[in-house]
Amino acid sequence: MILKRWLVGDPLKSTQAAHERLSKTLALAIFSSNSISSVAYATEEILLVLVLAGTAAIAWSIPISFAILFLVVVLTISYRQIIYEYPEGGGAYIVSRNNLGELPALIAAAALMIDYVLTVAVSVAAGIAALTSAVPSLFAHREALGLVASVFIIVMNLRGVRESGKFFAVPTYFAIGALGVMVVIGSIQALFGQGVSVSPDHQTAVEELTLFLILRSFAAGCSAVTGMEVISNGVKAFRRPESQNASTTMIQMSLVLAALFMGISFLAYHYGVLPKADETVISQLAHLTFGTGALYYALQIGTMLLLVLAANSAFAGFPHLASILARDGYMPRQMATFGDRLVFSNGIIILGVFACFLLILFHGDTHALIPLYAVGVFISFTFAQAGMVHRWLTKKGPHWRKQLIVNGVGAVTTGIATIIIASTKFTHGAWIVFLLILVLVMMFRSIRSHYKAVSEQIALTRDHRPPLPRRNIVIVPINGVNQAVIRAVDYARSRAGEIRAVMVDVDPEFTARIQIQWAQWGCGVNLIALPSPYRSVMGSLLDYIEEVLKKEPDTWVTVVIPEILPAHWWQSILHNQRALLLKTALLFKERVILTDVPFHLKR
Amino acid sequence: MILKRWLVGDPLKSTQAAHERLSKTLALAIFSSNSISSVAYATEEILLVLVLAGTAAIAWSIPISFAILFLVVVLTISYRQIIYEYPEGGGAYIVSRNNLGELPALIAAAALMIDYVLTVAVSVAAGIAALTSAVPSLFAHREALGLVASVFIIVMNLRGVRESGKFFAVPTYFAIGALGVMVVIGSIQALFGQGVSVSPDHQTAVEELTLFLILRSFAAGCSAVTGMEVISNGVKAFRRPESQNASTTMIQMSLVLAALFMGISFLAYHYGVLPKADETVISQLAHLTFGTGALYYALQIGTMLLLVLAANSAFAGFPHLASILARDGYMPRQMATFGDRLVFSNGIIILGVFACFLLILFHGDTHALIPLYAVGVFISFTFAQAGMVHRWLTKKGPHWRKQLIVNGVGAVTTGIATIIIASTKFTHGAWIVFLLILVLVMMFRSIRSHYKAVSEQIALTRDHRPPLPRRNIVIVPINGVNQAVIRAVDYARSRAGEIRAVMVDVDPEFTARIQIQWAQWGCGVNLIALPSPYRSVMGSLLDYIEEVLKKEPDTWVTVVIPEILPAHWWQSILHNQRALLLKTALLFKERVILTDVPFHLKR
Repeated sequence: MILKRWLVGDPLKSTQAAHERLSKTLALAIFSSNSISSVAYATEEILLVLVLAGTAAIAWSIPISFAILFLVVVLTISYRQIIYEYPEGGGAYIVSRNNLGELPALIAAAALMIDYVLTVAVSVAAGIAALTSAVPSLFAHREALGLVASVFIIVMNLRGVRESGKFFAVPTYFAIGALGVMVVIGSIQALFGQGVSVSPDHQTAVEELTLFLILRSFAAGCSAVTGMEVISNGVKAFRRPESQNASTTMIQMSLVLAALFMGISFLAYHYGVLPKADETVISQLAHLTFGTGALYYALQIGTMLLLVLAANSAFAGFPHLASILARDGYMPRQMATFGDRLVFSNGIIILGVFACFLLILFHGDTHALIPLYAVGVFISFTFAQAGMVHRWLTKKGPHWRKQLIVNGVGAVTTGIATIIIASTKFTHGAWIVFLLILVLVMMFRSIRSHYKAVSEQIALTRDHRPPLPRRNIVIVPINGVNQAVIRAVDYARSRAGEIRAVMVDVDPEFTARIQIQWAQWGCGVNLIALPSPYRSVMGSLLDYIEEVLKKEPDTWVTVVIPEILPAHWWQSILHNQRALLLKTALLFKERVILTDVPFHLKR
Repeated sequence: MILKRWLVGDPLKSTQAAHERLSKTLALAIFSSNSISSVAYATEEILLVLVLAGTAAIAWSIPISFAILFLVVVLTISYRQIIYEYPEGGGAYIVSRNNLGELPALIAAAALMIDYVLTVAVSVAAGIAALTSAVPSLFAHREALGLVASVFIIVMNLRGVRESGKFFAVPTYFAIGALGVMVVIGSIQALFGQGVSVSPDHQTAVEELTLFLILRSFAAGCSAVTGMEVISNGVKAFRRPESQNASTTMIQMSLVLAALFMGISFLAYHYGVLPKADETVISQLAHLTFGTGALYYALQIGTMLLLVLAANSAFAGFPHLASILARDGYMPRQMATFGDRLVFSNGIIILGVFACFLLILFHGDTHALIPLYAVGVFISFTFAQAGMVHRWLTKKGPHWRKQLIVNGVGAVTTGIATIIIASTKFTHGAWIVFLLILVLVMMFRSIRSHYKAVSEQIALTRDHRPPLPRRNIVIVPINGVNQAVIRAVDYARSRAGEIRAVMVDVDPEFTARIQIQWAQWGCGVNLIALPSPYRSVMGSLLDYIEEVLKKEPDTWVTVVIPEILPAHWWQSILHNQRALLLKTALLFKERVILTDVPFHLKR
């Protein structure tokens, strides 16, 4: 408990909740890190596919980057409309549920959940890649480093959202600044021809430059726009007026993202930088721009922090989505419970565990994770935009035609991108995502149907009320006469009902001794010795209870169990596990009620 | 449960216990397999040490065998006296406890326990070696085969002792017969010079033939007499007159053991057989005597069955010793519980688990296990004989001088052998045994002192009786109004005491709705809404209970928890674990009594 307090801080009162709202500056740091950090690997992933067709194919990176820039613009405009329309927070799940129905909503939710997990895994992996590019001796330990970083983020998130924001704002702005300086200086050098242009090693083509390869490269680059939906999910976390502030933050974020991504893609093309196994493209660019001095290390550290902390935005989004689903009955109810730091602790822990699992499975390698990434997020983009299209068509408010066109363009663009991503990545791992979406949707539905069945079964109806027993027979099973047993009998006597002490006669001599002691200590309670032909104490007791239940169909049978509780947990192995066995055996009998009377040992 | 019945048979009544006694024929099969099976590896272990000093040193195997024969004679005569003196079963523990005191008794018990485990492991490993000698292709799988054989024996033993006896008698007698035929035919061939004497490969000496090496070889050969004490532990299992029958069986066993062991040692020396890694000495002798026909395979199968089943005697002895220790308070009480097949199930399972662990640790290799073997058994021999010496000196019954001399010779002989075994094997692994004995003795003592502390704490004393609360406040925590809650309230109303329904006010709107429903369904029970500034339902409840306890120092506080029990166990994850958390939190509060009122879901 003390450890928990120290790690996650003191509990907060409900009234403090309003103060937990984020300023725009903090919100940009928290919500944009996911989106902006993508620039650290997006360009590299584009090049990694193109280079399969040889060095000449690299030229395609520029048109592909422009295509992705177009996506950024479309998404920014169309998501702004969602932010205004859903100030309570309009994730793809809510928009789809409101406008398209249950199944699309569940598919969108499943897709988003998977992408949250992947966001954490990819960001941490890429962050560690930034570190190992600067300190190559750590390359062998990237898996372990990734796990340490993940655990660090989990603990930070369990501490609550605002403190996390403060903690994350400085490195986020620092990284944006460092990347910006690199892009500006690099571009100036490039324009004035001062930069040291490397002559790229000519790589031989292993595949032909087909349309499919170009589309695959585009699909890989689409990881650049992941995270753009984060603000629309979290509008409620902004200060008033929420939608206004969220919208402004969204535009700021998109501008930074677009500038950095285009700048890096341009520089990489200009300098002929190719992806290397042990050094990121960003690190190579930084070397070319800054040399090997302090500025280079500052940029690498900034990038690393930005990426590792980018995972944080998923820790805001995932538990929030899970709690909405839990409230609608699609996830276990516990997911909807506030932890005592005003965050959804269960969701944070589950997200963290799955992300760590992915990091271990893929050995903390960004490139291995990328084929699974972005599929889910584009599915949810498409459903959200399609939902908005349906909304404008039905609602037809003022300016509905304009709004319809914006979201229509959004839906078509993201739809096409989704098809490209799904088809080019399918055999590379995207099939896993589709399978998982199917499994999750089935899980959501069966959870919901279970809760429905439960509420039907426990519902109270005016005309039908099950007749309940009125009398109470209290049975105290004993195996000796001692303080623990007498305490249980005394407790039983404090209640109404017929009391029977019961022992199993395994050894007649022992039974006789107990009966004599009982005469002195038994407080006048009747002691019944049960015959036990098979020496099974448990069997005889259960038979007796069964018999009482049969004989008296209108009574409760309360079994009061005297239980000796040792002073130390490891001593419990030295005490007969009879109480536990008895409880397990009786748990599923109708009308049998179990009561423990603990006797606490002091040593 | 059905699986259990099928594997271990129907439960037996107590009155059937007398019928479970063993005839001499069955007893010889059960109790002698351990002792006689040692001939399968004892000679080989002697040779394995001697061969280190080159082929010439092999001649020492004959005098060493005679020394071991002397041990057999001494042990037979001195253990007969124990059998008559302790017809209730006189293991080294009982004899030492009666005559020497607690510490020697516990050391003897610990030593015996360790040797029981080793008996199982060594016998199974040697049995599998007999099999793989005949079928070399199985050599690679000896570890897995050993585990399968162990599990087989465990299940057989859980079925109960008499059926095991019948099951084991046929192979035991078959193996004794086969080994006897081999020794007789081999000896005749040897005497008349008909046998094909192999010219042994001259092995170069890697060590000098020192006295230490000869003693080490003797120590290795001492594994031949392990298991001789088994009959004295199990006198009670014989038919009446127990001591008479046990004594006769002991002499029969010793004669068979002596004849087979000396015969095999003689034949091995005569034919110049040397130990091989993948073929046992017995298998080599059988090849020389029987060729490669059916008789050879019959002998190997017989030896294997004898060895694997020899482990069985440990399964009779270990649980018996554990139950005696448990009765004296040195082992957890559960060890003293009869299973429903009249056997000590807990002991059987523990022995089986440890033996399997050893088989895995030593890769099912007999030679690796031998250095740990026999140390424990010789320590227990020595304590038992010393105990008898002390007994005759104190008791001085008729013929006490003669009896004193017999056990005196026994004590001195086994004492010297123990010193030889311990000193020559110490660095080869025997130190582990000494360490384990120390640990076990410490464990025995701390268990006993715990039980003593418990019985002091729960003892009833005439003059002091702790004042017990008389009144009862019943608290029913609720989180809604439904059948499960109403059932719990109804149960609470069937008892005396003040009843309070309690809910935690997290959401004022929800609380108001519950209060309205309560007015209709609450049966007039008072509903208290607890404030919860930190939204911690658990915390508010616990605070309230703490407050009630403080305000009312003379009452029981009964917490009646309405608990929804799902129809399938895997559904429980979908229900709030609040009931479980509450129980854990309240378990250690004095005067708080927990009562579950389960509501069973049907689907």
